[in-house]
Amino acid sequence: MTGRVDVAVVGAGIIGLSIAWRCAQRGLSVSVHDTGAGNAWGVAAGMLAPVGESTFGHEHLTGLLVEGSRRWPAFAAELAALTGVDVGYRDEGTLTVALTADDVAGADRLWDHQEAAGLRLTRLAPSELRDWEPALSPRVRRGAHAPDDRQVDPRRVVAALRTLVPVTEAPPDARTTVVAAGCGTAALTGLPIRPVKGQVLRLRGDAGTLRHVIRGYADGRHVYLVPRADGEIVVGATEEERADAAVTAGGVAELLRAALDLVPELAECELAEAAVGHRPGTPDNAPVIGRLPGRADVVVASGHHRHGVLLAPITADIVADEITGTPAPEAWSPRRFA
Amino acid sequence: MTGRVDVAVVGAGIIGLSIAWRCAQRGLSVSVHDTGAGNAWGVAAGMLAPVGESTFGHEHLTGLLVEGSRRWPAFAAELAALTGVDVGYRDEGTLTVALTADDVAGADRLWDHQEAAGLRLTRLAPSELRDWEPALSPRVRRGAHAPDDRQVDPRRVVAALRTLVPVTEAPPDARTTVVAAGCGTAALTGLPIRPVKGQVLRLRGDAGTLRHVIRGYADGRHVYLVPRADGEIVVGATEEERADAAVTAGGVAELLRAALDLVPELAECELAEAAVGHRPGTPDNAPVIGRLPGRADVVVASGHHRHGVLLAPITADIVADEITGTPAPEAWSPRRFA
Repeated sequence: MTGRVDVAVVGAGIIGLSIAWRCAQRGLSVSVHDTGAGNAWGVAAGMLAPVGESTFGHEHLTGLLVEGSRRWPAFAAELAALTGVDVGYRDEGTLTVALTADDVAGADRLWDHQEAAGLRLTRLAPSELRDWEPALSPRVRRGAHAPDDRQVDPRRVVAALRTLVPVTEAPPDARTTVVAAGCGTAALTGLPIRPVKGQVLRLRGDAGTLRHVIRGYADGRHVYLVPRADGEIVVGATEEERADAAVTAGGVAELLRAALDLVPELAECELAEAAVGHRPGTPDNAPVIGRLPGRADVVVASGHHRHGVLLAPITADIVADEITGTPAPEAWSPRRFA
Repeated sequence: MTGRVDVAVVGAGIIGLSIAWRCAQRGLSVSVHDTGAGNAWGVAAGMLAPVGESTFGHEHLTGLLVEGSRRWPAFAAELAALTGVDVGYRDEGTLTVALTADDVAGADRLWDHQEAAGLRLTRLAPSELRDWEPALSPRVRRGAHAPDDRQVDPRRVVAALRTLVPVTEAPPDARTTVVAAGCGTAALTGLPIRPVKGQVLRLRGDAGTLRHVIRGYADGRHVYLVPRADGEIVVGATEEERADAAVTAGGVAELLRAALDLVPELAECELAEAAVGHRPGTPDNAPVIGRLPGRADVVVASGHHRHGVLLAPITADIVADEITGTPAPEAWSPRRFA
């Protein structure tokens, strides 16, 4: 691609590609540039969990997460129809489970909090839990089903998007530059975006070992288990305020211990992959979407922290709106960090 | 290499290469053929542990293990001098430690057993343990130091041997064929040698985190920790009666849990490798060294189970003796399985 384009997107992850796709659909000429930095999508489990992610201290995000989630079914369906790629969208809902008495106490408070926010949950007795998910340990004491928490496979989503939006080596001259470079956004914009390290495992077992995404609290450890149709089970994730890319003995041990406490038969699964990603975190844990102060030709879309996959479709819509004349919401503007 | 050689060794692992080297030193023409099967040395930690390996039910092996160990200092020194390769021979001795009251009870019985066999041990109080090995958890209750249990790095040993003994594609015509093919020996000879799967981790941390090899009993789990001079720490090993090569969630979880229970600061180490090897096991857990019944031109050297590295030098000597006219000991002969 040569010459001036309408939109140059810096960052070829799930956010950048989604933006490029949506902009192109509005008739804009678009290029996408891969920075090499920012790889959170490649490690992410792909939970679309407005309920499970509505935890204490994140009330300001709930509305965005819910609306972001609402846009996923159509986004996934359109992407699959256009590309023929099965992006792994699954809507069996998510089970949140608690192992010890302390875990139950914490989960109960969390479920009360989520219900108070208007989110749908069905509390389940231990006997019901085993009907829903036979592989759960008999030690698991309590659980709740969130029908609106779903999943997608981020690697498949990105593969599909890449068939629609070619990625170029260097960004051309553009009327508007969109910086969607994950943790690389800080260096490009000066915004206070920091890496939050996450270690994630991928197990390989029999498809059907788990029927639902499991979010578990096990003896004070938090873990999620995300089963794919092909037998892959994603186990995540540590949350560490550091930038290194090392898979550590401690990180893997904590994840496996919690996973096996909740679902003992996972012990027989192959440990197929252990990887590290870096979530782009912001001081208020909310994303940064909008014009960069003092740079009317630059739009930022980053800082999605744990929610990059969930918020990719809505972020793409907001950015395409902004570029075509409908201002982005003030709440996520980079101006709040100016 | 073409034409008829004196000795063709089938198997290019630590046993086969050691045999080829020792035979060549006696003036025999030798070739080594890599079968591709048998990789136990590539995963093995390289403990040279006649004391630690003298466990209940293995009394018939103690003499061989002790004599095998005695041959290592000269073997390592000669190999290093000839090749310039540092083979990682270290003689600080090994600490065996026990975590819980049950672990202590088991370890005490084992130490009594080893001392009764005439093996050297120094029992250590908890306070002394921390002087010997400051990184040990304060929870570790008891330990003993075995000064005669040492270590070597099997990957370096094999690298050194390979500079001395070239490995060929196919075995040439030979006066004597030595089958040293690890688990592949069963298919080649019909001997009852079975794979015993072992999962082994390699951590990477600061050199000096551990001063000694640690053999630990931690809440019923057995683990060993073998520190190298370059900061690698080998953590092993599962012992499973199966032939598959999968690194499993359960295997890794058990090893890490035991390792971190004993030495908590290992949590910060990088988990650099998780691998599977297969020990060649025999019905009586003793190696098979000697002429194959009915095949006077075939000598077997396999079935070393957990002791392939420790017994490589003595096995090489026994096989070179056998080929040059000094019969191998009857105790390890393949005839016992005829």
